[in-house]
Amino acid sequence: MIGGSLDAFIGAVHRRAAIFDSEIELVCGAFSSNPEKSKATGHALYLPENRVYGSFTEMIEQEKSLPEGERMDFVSIVTPNHMHFPAAKLALKNGFHVVCDKPMTLNLEEAKELAKIVEETGLLFCLTHNYTGYPMVKEAREMVRSGKLGKLRKIIAEYPQGWLSKLEEATDYKQAIWRTDPAKSGAAGCMGDIGTHAENLAEYITGLKITELSADLTTFVEGRKLDDDGNVLLRFENGAKGILHASQIANGEENGLKIRVYGELGGLEWTQTEPNTLLYKTQEGQRIIRTGVGELSAAAKANTRVPAGHPEGFFEAFANLYRNFALTLRARLNGQEPDPLYTDFPSVEDGIRGLAFIETLIQSNGSDQKWTKFVE
Amino acid sequence: MIGGSLDAFIGAVHRRAAIFDSEIELVCGAFSSNPEKSKATGHALYLPENRVYGSFTEMIEQEKSLPEGERMDFVSIVTPNHMHFPAAKLALKNGFHVVCDKPMTLNLEEAKELAKIVEETGLLFCLTHNYTGYPMVKEAREMVRSGKLGKLRKIIAEYPQGWLSKLEEATDYKQAIWRTDPAKSGAAGCMGDIGTHAENLAEYITGLKITELSADLTTFVEGRKLDDDGNVLLRFENGAKGILHASQIANGEENGLKIRVYGELGGLEWTQTEPNTLLYKTQEGQRIIRTGVGELSAAAKANTRVPAGHPEGFFEAFANLYRNFALTLRARLNGQEPDPLYTDFPSVEDGIRGLAFIETLIQSNGSDQKWTKFVE
Amino acid sequence: MIGGSLDAFIGAVHRRAAIFDSEIELVCGAFSSNPEKSKATGHALYLPENRVYGSFTEMIEQEKSLPEGERMDFVSIVTPNHMHFPAAKLALKNGFHVVCDKPMTLNLEEAKELAKIVEETGLLFCLTHNYTGYPMVKEAREMVRSGKLGKLRKIIAEYPQGWLSKLEEATDYKQAIWRTDPAKSGAAGCMGDIGTHAENLAEYITGLKITELSADLTTFVEGRKLDDDGNVLLRFENGAKGILHASQIANGEENGLKIRVYGELGGLEWTQTEPNTLLYKTQEGQRIIRTGVGELSAAAKANTRVPAGHPEGFFEAFANLYRNFALTLRARLNGQEPDPLYTDFPSVEDGIRGLAFIETLIQSNGSDQKWTKFVE
Amino acid sequence: MIGGSLDAFIGAVHRRAAIFDSEIELVCGAFSSNPEKSKATGHALYLPENRVYGSFTEMIEQEKSLPEGERMDFVSIVTPNHMHFPAAKLALKNGFHVVCDKPMTLNLEEAKELAKIVEETGLLFCLTHNYTGYPMVKEAREMVRSGKLGKLRKIIAEYPQGWLSKLEEATDYKQAIWRTDPAKSGAAGCMGDIGTHAENLAEYITGLKITELSADLTTFVEGRKLDDDGNVLLRFENGAKGILHASQIANGEENGLKIRVYGELGGLEWTQTEPNTLLYKTQEGQRIIRTGVGELSAAAKANTRVPAGHPEGFFEAFANLYRNFALTLRARLNGQEPDPLYTDFPSVEDGIRGLAFIETLIQSNGSDQKWTKFVE
Repeated sequence: MIGGSLDAFIGAVHRRAAIFDSEIELVCGAFSSNPEKSKATGHALYLPENRVYGSFTEMIEQEKSLPEGERMDFVSIVTPNHMHFPAAKLALKNGFHVVCDKPMTLNLEEAKELAKIVEETGLLFCLTHNYTGYPMVKEAREMVRSGKLGKLRKIIAEYPQGWLSKLEEATDYKQAIWRTDPAKSGAAGCMGDIGTHAENLAEYITGLKITELSADLTTFVEGRKLDDDGNVLLRFENGAKGILHASQIANGEENGLKIRVYGELGGLEWTQTEPNTLLYKTQEGQRIIRTGVGELSAAAKANTRVPAGHPEGFFEAFANLYRNFALTLRARLNGQEPDPLYTDFPSVEDGIRGLAFIETLIQSNGSDQKWTKFVE
Repeated sequence: MIGGSLDAFIGAVHRRAAIFDSEIELVCGAFSSNPEKSKATGHALYLPENRVYGSFTEMIEQEKSLPEGERMDFVSIVTPNHMHFPAAKLALKNGFHVVCDKPMTLNLEEAKELAKIVEETGLLFCLTHNYTGYPMVKEAREMVRSGKLGKLRKIIAEYPQGWLSKLEEATDYKQAIWRTDPAKSGAAGCMGDIGTHAENLAEYITGLKITELSADLTTFVEGRKLDDDGNVLLRFENGAKGILHASQIANGEENGLKIRVYGELGGLEWTQTEPNTLLYKTQEGQRIIRTGVGELSAAAKANTRVPAGHPEGFFEAFANLYRNFALTLRARLNGQEPDPLYTDFPSVEDGIRGLAFIETLIQSNGSDQKWTKFVE
Repeated sequence: MIGGSLDAFIGAVHRRAAIFDSEIELVCGAFSSNPEKSKATGHALYLPENRVYGSFTEMIEQEKSLPEGERMDFVSIVTPNHMHFPAAKLALKNGFHVVCDKPMTLNLEEAKELAKIVEETGLLFCLTHNYTGYPMVKEAREMVRSGKLGKLRKIIAEYPQGWLSKLEEATDYKQAIWRTDPAKSGAAGCMGDIGTHAENLAEYITGLKITELSADLTTFVEGRKLDDDGNVLLRFENGAKGILHASQIANGEENGLKIRVYGELGGLEWTQTEPNTLLYKTQEGQRIIRTGVGELSAAAKANTRVPAGHPEGFFEAFANLYRNFALTLRARLNGQEPDPLYTDFPSVEDGIRGLAFIETLIQSNGSDQKWTKFVE
Repeated sequence: MIGGSLDAFIGAVHRRAAIFDSEIELVCGAFSSNPEKSKATGHALYLPENRVYGSFTEMIEQEKSLPEGERMDFVSIVTPNHMHFPAAKLALKNGFHVVCDKPMTLNLEEAKELAKIVEETGLLFCLTHNYTGYPMVKEAREMVRSGKLGKLRKIIAEYPQGWLSKLEEATDYKQAIWRTDPAKSGAAGCMGDIGTHAENLAEYITGLKITELSADLTTFVEGRKLDDDGNVLLRFENGAKGILHASQIANGEENGLKIRVYGELGGLEWTQTEPNTLLYKTQEGQRIIRTGVGELSAAAKANTRVPAGHPEGFFEAFANLYRNFALTLRARLNGQEPDPLYTDFPSVEDGIRGLAFIETLIQSNGSDQKWTKFVE
């Protein structure tokens, strides 16, 4: 693991998600650019001292020198955004598969370069767009694929949060500080951090690509360097229309990621804070589809661990990405064809779409033209 | 009453709303342009035959000729949209107060002319933007006014419906036929019929005016003459940003009118299909505000009839407009100052805003420019 | 109308419900045992002075002396409970049909006598167990009848309120005072006032009669004369088991009337505070059944006034009883067979069941035996 | 681990819960009474062969013979109910701490004996009444403790399930087979399996003990050997009254564990299927308390891993028990005083209460007397 010292929120999430299904074991780490901090973290995690490194370059070098079977199988990158690219690049170039937090890189250029390296090395790459790991998101995608909704017409994706309603980055709130710093976060704030989750979810469920958009990004909190709110009109490749809005100043909201999709025959609604429920809507009425209840797609079932009524949440969805990655990796290590049910984890393609989305938003926001083509 | 024959949906709504509080009695009507139909309706409503008229011109003329105290006090206009203006104009010019269904007229020009007539005659005019009649909508407005939310930043107003997901106007579905016919409905379909409700609600609750917008209107159902879906970016006068979307093709949705308002200090959420609940959100948690429960504003209380736990709905909200209009009218007839609690019903100003909104949407939709100023 | 002066909550409810569908007109009233109050109420309701009476005996006598066609068609009794019986009896004996608030009488003996009078006179009698007027309650009953749930096994009926969590009757809160006074309310407090609603709803929807029960009634608030809480085990005639609980001290609850019914094939859930939703549950998933949406029973449709998405509430359900009564009465006055859709309003049978339920509760509560047979 | 072969539902739950926080490592197991099955499970879990045993007696014996520091620290018992007692007894007698699934034993006699052994050995014992691990359950308990609800009056605990609506035990559904078999499950079916969860939750949150009860247990499905439904009236030690009902034939229900508690000053409501929400109710309105939002008790915070908006569910709650147990155990191993925040996991006392509850239910169900004292 690269990054994820004890005081980092997302590191602990990745660790729990990784070990959850007993398919992955944490064997080494460069948990911080501060070697002392890295060491302390490794100690707390009961790692042997010689597998705790002071930097990711050291780790990759040292691990590579270990005999096969003893060295780590893959690297998990959970640093702030600006370190994703150099760490992933080095790992791949040295033959390690990669799991990487999103956004994949700091900008589109890096994203494309990384995709090229993945292609050249032929190694596995998993981007942790974690919300696609929920069973009901899988079910939603399968319902669209199976034609239950008919041709899609309208998509509404939203992600309101309220935690940055004040200038939290002026306090010592670490999460707020790096996420509002362009050097560490990238060109977009709210839209990069959570807007891309909404975009990824919309494209994942619908199977449609955004072709053009019209954006209105705002920085509401005085003194902030990046956008903390954005409203976007979307157009998709089959003529579907959409709306995407995200906010960090929607006072009183938690992580209100929500998507609604309407087609000629029916609609769907899914909300992240109540993730085990999927609403299926037609003019004849609504059905409540629930994790583990009744007939569900193979994809939904493969990503569910317990019978109905045992609410699975954020960690379980996150763990699905790791588990699917691990099973695909194991198949490869065993020289087998991976089960297509488990190759379903976000890839460099998702990473490129995310960075391209950010660049398109920035372009559109600075333009007087209503529509800006999705950059490629 | 002008319009509202037995087979008209909205006529029966107006009648029930009008008589609900025993302040108003139906005394006469020109219920249809078809005199037979008008007569049959009057008969079913137990009206004396001589007060049932074959046309609104006849009705206004005849009623005017009756002695004061015997003739009708005001006219209620519930025809399809294109007849609102001529009927309202004639009524006002002949000294009758007017209650009129929305949209006020077929276009902005008529709206302005009507507003002028109202001003000149000094008569009362109530536009039935019925959703502002709900007690929790009143409460929301009072919370904004009192500063509980702080300076407003973001407004999301939506009104998804699904009933026109197919070409219903090709059947004999009367409601679908006139609402999708530009000659009877006006220049906008979905956005005129329900988008204006969302616009009116947003301006009512926030007290802010939309200053510019960017619209993407669509006709999804082949063969339809007017838009059946619209997505709009909004900008408000104090720097607040917003989104408005409405649809008649959101398969499986009923009347999903919903508004969320976020300010520096807190947020609000209200949904029409569960109208007795208002969510008040801050980073410290959410409170469920309910009709009739605990401390509420005078405005909310004045528009509630029963203690908590007795759900009041669509008719009651509609009746609030009529009751408030009636109390204001009675005060005037008695030479008294009306109670400001009851003068709160939508006026010609709301009507003008609604038609201007439609015109701005049409302009923006045809434009390559991102922003179109709200027409005046 | 007998009872229902201006300051009475339920009188205004009955008036609005009665006139809502333009089938009934208020023509006279004895609104209070205090003639001044009665007069003031009549005046406020725009009644002619000579139709406002100082007592219900005077009213019945005077109205009877009017020529047919001018006198009232039926009497609506909305007094505190202890006056129901004498008023209803006198009205019936003088040839007037009766609508009566629940509980029908002060005790079971009176109830049986009244039933006998109704039978002898052959007049119509409607008991306003208003919650059975909701369209989704009708739908629930039709679903049970049609066998969709299979043989019923378990029924859970509850009605928690919190408004009497303190000794409100020690203040000048009129509603609290008479409802906690045995002389005006009868032998049970909470269980008589709202427990009987739960009992009536359970028997109405399931079509099953309670055969025995085990009750634990409590007076939690010191100084109160009647029970303010009750928990009851139920057994039904087909072997179904159940639970009924009601409370006036469930702090923070409004009118939480709710019923769940489970059979061999499926279950149902309905909640009064969100009355337009009915949940239909099977092991294959849940369906949301909504007023006005999709295919519904004739009974549900006949008791709905507006298309889906326009929430109908407490008043509309109440008005359904009056409307159905009025249509049945009109058929009789016209010498026609009434439409069975509209004869569905609560009758003296429901009244007797309610009073018998109260008596059985009191018996059971005083007994050491687990089971007490439902008294007849 | 004792029990929990690959096809056992609860074994995998325990394993995931145990390792979730990197405080516990699975080092050995006797996963099945079938040695082949045990071996296969150990293999799949990457355990060394010599730590996978053919029986729990073998495991305890062998592990005990390992040097301290190498042998297991505690035993986790996840077998069907009838094996809990012998396994726990042997483990304790040989000096191993124990985590044990509920119910603790097959009957009250065994429970008391086990409690005595725990006391005598001074070892740690954790009973996995997992629902008390949810942060909002902790918060509920703290709110009661702090007096926010005032003196408690009424408690309603329920746990409806629908999965045994048919005779599933006649198929090869393993979960159904052992849970409906008295030899493996104990004297009660539904009430033992899930009724005890409701009982435990009620006593945990309220801090009150049930003193007497009146039960009506039913076996609805023909051919079933144990109760599949139960309705119970409760009385608590401070005069509070209550209702507890549980069912396995509530068709269409998942794991609907829910509790409502009402006191003189306010009420609480918590539902397991939406576990991150706690409703706090007073006559002034309702507040939505959410995991991670605003000011919460130390107990709630100590059992939450991620910021608000990341739904934590069943596994996380379960993991809280293991984590708390592990931290307490580690403190003991380190010779430190354990942090009281982490000693909060269910104990043998909870186990005794559970078995006594079952025995009382059975007694009451067979009795004509209304009230049966809670056996001790």
